[in-house]
Amino acid sequence: MTDGVPDVDLDAVRREGLLPTPGAEPTPHDGTGRVSLSFTVLDPDPERVVRREVRVPPGVTVFDSASWNGIAIDSTCGGHGTCHKCKVRLDSAGAITRHDVKTFTRDQLDAGWRLACLVNATRDLAVDVPPLTTRPKAATVGVGRQVILRPAIQKRYVELDEPTLADQRPDLVRLLDAVDDLEPTPDLHVLRRLPRVLREADFKVTAVVVDESLVDVEPGDTTGAQYAIAFDLGTTTVVATLLDVSTGTPVAVASMLNRQQPFGGDVITRISATMLDPDALHRLQQAAAQTLATLAAQVCAEGEVDPAHVYEVALAGNATMTALVLGVDPEPLGVAPFVMSTAHPPTVLAADLGLALHPRARAAIFPALGAYVGGDIVAGMLATGMDRDKRTRLMIDVGTNCEIVLSNGDRIVSTAAPAGPAFEGGAIRCGMRAAEGAIEVVKLGEDVELGVIGDIDPKGLCGSGLVDAVAELVKVGLLDGSGRFVPDEDAPSVAPALADRLTRIGDERVFVLHRPHPGADPADCVVLSQRDVRELQFAKAAISTGWSLLLEELGLEPRDVQQVLMAGSFGSYLSPASAVRIGLVPTLPVLRIVSAGNVAGEGAKMALLSLRERAGATALTEEVTYVELSDRADFNDRFVDQLAFHGANGG
Amino acid sequence: MTDGVPDVDLDAVRREGLLPTPGAEPTPHDGTGRVSLSFTVLDPDPERVVRREVRVPPGVTVFDSASWNGIAIDSTCGGHGTCHKCKVRLDSAGAITRHDVKTFTRDQLDAGWRLACLVNATRDLAVDVPPLTTRPKAATVGVGRQVILRPAIQKRYVELDEPTLADQRPDLVRLLDAVDDLEPTPDLHVLRRLPRVLREADFKVTAVVVDESLVDVEPGDTTGAQYAIAFDLGTTTVVATLLDVSTGTPVAVASMLNRQQPFGGDVITRISATMLDPDALHRLQQAAAQTLATLAAQVCAEGEVDPAHVYEVALAGNATMTALVLGVDPEPLGVAPFVMSTAHPPTVLAADLGLALHPRARAAIFPALGAYVGGDIVAGMLATGMDRDKRTRLMIDVGTNCEIVLSNGDRIVSTAAPAGPAFEGGAIRCGMRAAEGAIEVVKLGEDVELGVIGDIDPKGLCGSGLVDAVAELVKVGLLDGSGRFVPDEDAPSVAPALADRLTRIGDERVFVLHRPHPGADPADCVVLSQRDVRELQFAKAAISTGWSLLLEELGLEPRDVQQVLMAGSFGSYLSPASAVRIGLVPTLPVLRIVSAGNVAGEGAKMALLSLRERAGATALTEEVTYVELSDRADFNDRFVDQLAFHGANGG
Repeated sequence: MTDGVPDVDLDAVRREGLLPTPGAEPTPHDGTGRVSLSFTVLDPDPERVVRREVRVPPGVTVFDSASWNGIAIDSTCGGHGTCHKCKVRLDSAGAITRHDVKTFTRDQLDAGWRLACLVNATRDLAVDVPPLTTRPKAATVGVGRQVILRPAIQKRYVELDEPTLADQRPDLVRLLDAVDDLEPTPDLHVLRRLPRVLREADFKVTAVVVDESLVDVEPGDTTGAQYAIAFDLGTTTVVATLLDVSTGTPVAVASMLNRQQPFGGDVITRISATMLDPDALHRLQQAAAQTLATLAAQVCAEGEVDPAHVYEVALAGNATMTALVLGVDPEPLGVAPFVMSTAHPPTVLAADLGLALHPRARAAIFPALGAYVGGDIVAGMLATGMDRDKRTRLMIDVGTNCEIVLSNGDRIVSTAAPAGPAFEGGAIRCGMRAAEGAIEVVKLGEDVELGVIGDIDPKGLCGSGLVDAVAELVKVGLLDGSGRFVPDEDAPSVAPALADRLTRIGDERVFVLHRPHPGADPADCVVLSQRDVRELQFAKAAISTGWSLLLEELGLEPRDVQQVLMAGSFGSYLSPASAVRIGLVPTLPVLRIVSAGNVAGEGAKMALLSLRERAGATALTEEVTYVELSDRADFNDRFVDQLAFHGANGG
Repeated sequence: MTDGVPDVDLDAVRREGLLPTPGAEPTPHDGTGRVSLSFTVLDPDPERVVRREVRVPPGVTVFDSASWNGIAIDSTCGGHGTCHKCKVRLDSAGAITRHDVKTFTRDQLDAGWRLACLVNATRDLAVDVPPLTTRPKAATVGVGRQVILRPAIQKRYVELDEPTLADQRPDLVRLLDAVDDLEPTPDLHVLRRLPRVLREADFKVTAVVVDESLVDVEPGDTTGAQYAIAFDLGTTTVVATLLDVSTGTPVAVASMLNRQQPFGGDVITRISATMLDPDALHRLQQAAAQTLATLAAQVCAEGEVDPAHVYEVALAGNATMTALVLGVDPEPLGVAPFVMSTAHPPTVLAADLGLALHPRARAAIFPALGAYVGGDIVAGMLATGMDRDKRTRLMIDVGTNCEIVLSNGDRIVSTAAPAGPAFEGGAIRCGMRAAEGAIEVVKLGEDVELGVIGDIDPKGLCGSGLVDAVAELVKVGLLDGSGRFVPDEDAPSVAPALADRLTRIGDERVFVLHRPHPGADPADCVVLSQRDVRELQFAKAAISTGWSLLLEELGLEPRDVQQVLMAGSFGSYLSPASAVRIGLVPTLPVLRIVSAGNVAGEGAKMALLSLRERAGATALTEEVTYVELSDRADFNDRFVDQLAFHGANGG
């Protein structure tokens, strides 16, 4: 190690051609498209070097991009450039900040070394990440949140005096006397093993405490193995992150589709299933449990961690997902007046969720604000620090049910808007999920420029592509303010290069985004139809009605919003410029629109790393006011007002 | 109902010939023998009238005799004659107290009505018990302990407002807002059912709370069904009492041999079994669980109570029984330095003990003082009020392991003495348990007078008969102070009527207690052998060494002891006079020697009826000093000193 830069043979692991380009200045991003980051996590052992490619919206920091994808970079300051620990080397490094100057030598700066938290990714980058150097007391998670490590999981290695006739203290007392900073209650499971473990290990054991419970006593010193898994249990996608809670380091990340999918794509169809079939609740519970178990096995295998060393999980999900995974009857969530069984699920065992980890591992489940502002959003508020920031901030988690949170730095209000399935590709003619072959970026000018996941021929249109397509068509004038395609006869004058793409399938007008071959029938093309536009209009109207009512609630104008956080696995990938253009978010400079990533998963990680943050989540449920939209007499009028594209034609 | 005496047709249920004998005065009992009480529990419905015959040592009150046998008699004052509720009618009523005069009319007194707590049973009695008339706020249990009812089980019937869009409180909040005097934590089990139960029952439900936990929500008003089971888990015998905790009334009592018997008669053989066979712990746990489950089913059937309405059990057992039923490795209890895994077992589910009651029923397990002064003794201290009485009292629970507790009204000390199996009929030539055919009372005078359980031909000698036989032989002079039978040639002069019963089987001298037919071979008779006397001497020496060391510990003389409580299923049936004569207890007037009954079971009942008393049990473990005998250098000398029968020949 010299000058803080790790003593690793970078050339042995750096790909050819990835040399830095000194002096290249980043340009402010325009809020469109996607950037690709190729991370190489270095290690003295070449076999342990890991490479990962991720795609993020432009403007996200390199540090956050890594963090959201489970790539650990040293940091203790929370991404403020002050700890000078998050050192990375970029192939195409730009501006040098004063913090970089304090941290690196001239040679290192020339070689592309920068602090990851200060680099906004505005172009494709190759990033070398040194191995972790310190055992931190804090970790950076969520949206630049620094969390002082105080996990519920605590291990204490002790060497006890053996009992004598003069010292007949019970085994448990002997153990707890030695662990004098904690006063846990023993699980029966521990008591059963305690006498034998103590004696077979010559009274040298490790006490494993989770929160208030003594969950195990392990022979010898096992303090090196302290793991937990954070779950973001989404209706569509479920993400698991295996964490080393002693360092805050993510060890492995995995995601998969929720196995409840066969019961329906959204929460309402799944709730309906339980109302039609008395066995469906049990099967939905099993499906959720299998999803979690599959992911748990996957991250443990990938991280080379014994599942028995995972002592806690945290789970953030919406109210329906939470009810279903706990086996709680969800029916009242699905019908007015939309009532939860409880806002604060009890602490249960991970085994109650079908997980085969440590047999007494605990599961901490996020509390909820309401039937449609669930634990995932509370976790998101935690991750984004909605209650810790003095700025006026709006968080929007876009999805079939869209949750909206607004804080003026003093009061926090929230609501849920029924956006429908458009953003997830549902009810859209060529709609598909954000998977390989999905158009995720659309730019219209002299021609149609498409960004396609996997760089293959387009197969369909995912949510972000849909929003881009509509926004661009509004921009070039082919869609008018009411969301109607301009008359065929006007198209050539409005957008000469694109007019021939405006055609029909049957009676319906469509815009052709991709023709598989010249002269292809429109029905064989990837198109955007008039009905698709209507679907998106309804979705965006529901959402903008939601945030405009929240702004009113706090007496604010749209321009007062200092930051819009686009959250969730879908919202984080929307183009900020397009979101502004179609009116999905308030009309603001694109730099105020920030992709926040999977904030529910980040919140779950925070709960595992800090009991204080976990308590913060509970406090949020008291602090935040839930505004029920379906109760408001003026909702429908407001909704109709919001249908139009105000940004159309130079708006 | 007239004048407090129930309006029941007594003649319809009273047996013929059981008319009172006015004016018959009870005589002070001499501490020997046994009395028989025939209880008739009256009921307006002749089919529900219950008859039960019990045998108790003379001097026990009628109220206690009933209570120990699960027969409920109204009472709120704790047996002090002040509440005037415990009215019974006796066939042979004696002295009339001033409390009786205040309670009954002259006619009623003439008819045999008395307050049960003021009648000492010194002769056989027939007792008519009126049905319970009041819903009490207190119950009398243990040795005259009045317990204010504050059970852990609480039910609240509530009728809730149905949710609306203006009142979206979660189901749990809605429920708990209505149960505002309690703040229980819900079990996951309850949450799962809550939405459906509320709606199917039109929001009219009963919340079931056990201690801090909401264990169920039942449709409609089920407040009438609040049951618990108290278990005395003995090494030999297990007793279960089904209680209605809302009234403190015992509903049914059952007992059976512990199914662990095949593993050995005492705790040491059972611990050894677990050391020899790795599967034995599991099988012992199963055997205990089956014993408890069998008894639970029995008392529920007898009491006509749905097992799902039993929400809590309490369990008092010695440290080994407690460890085994919890599946805790008992090995360190069995070898020096005799260490428990914990003195305070955690609260577990009744299901963890193998019980099929309410699925979330809790099990409260008594804490222990040491490896050989276990939860059963702590329960016994609770039942006898060892910490609430200002008198100097000695409690002796006689058994294979004999526990001794001494209180001077200020300090409490305790110890355990290894008495061996003699009292339970083990290692005794004609020894047997206190079952049908066992000689339980022996009186020697001009002839041999035997009391036999079941009034059939004697088959053997149980513990109390053994103690009686030795005490009587010492009294008549056939045994000398050293415990040796007098020489054959001296016998006719010492006890002319009995001398021919002193004979031999092989080389060993024996005293014939019962000859099946004249001229029967001694080997076919029920006899007391010289070796039997030695066994009893060793047992009583261990015990008297124990209490004499405790007396020293508190600076007391034997004569300072104001009350000796003979406890446990065996100790309670010892003849006080014989116990004094052989030196098992300090030399005191027999009226100071009191049978305390099954105090462990009574303590378990108290824990179910009152959280305050339950906390008192935990407090006892802090207040009582445990004195380890095996650690004392002078134990063996003291033991040898105690072998002799000091009461011999007019002592």
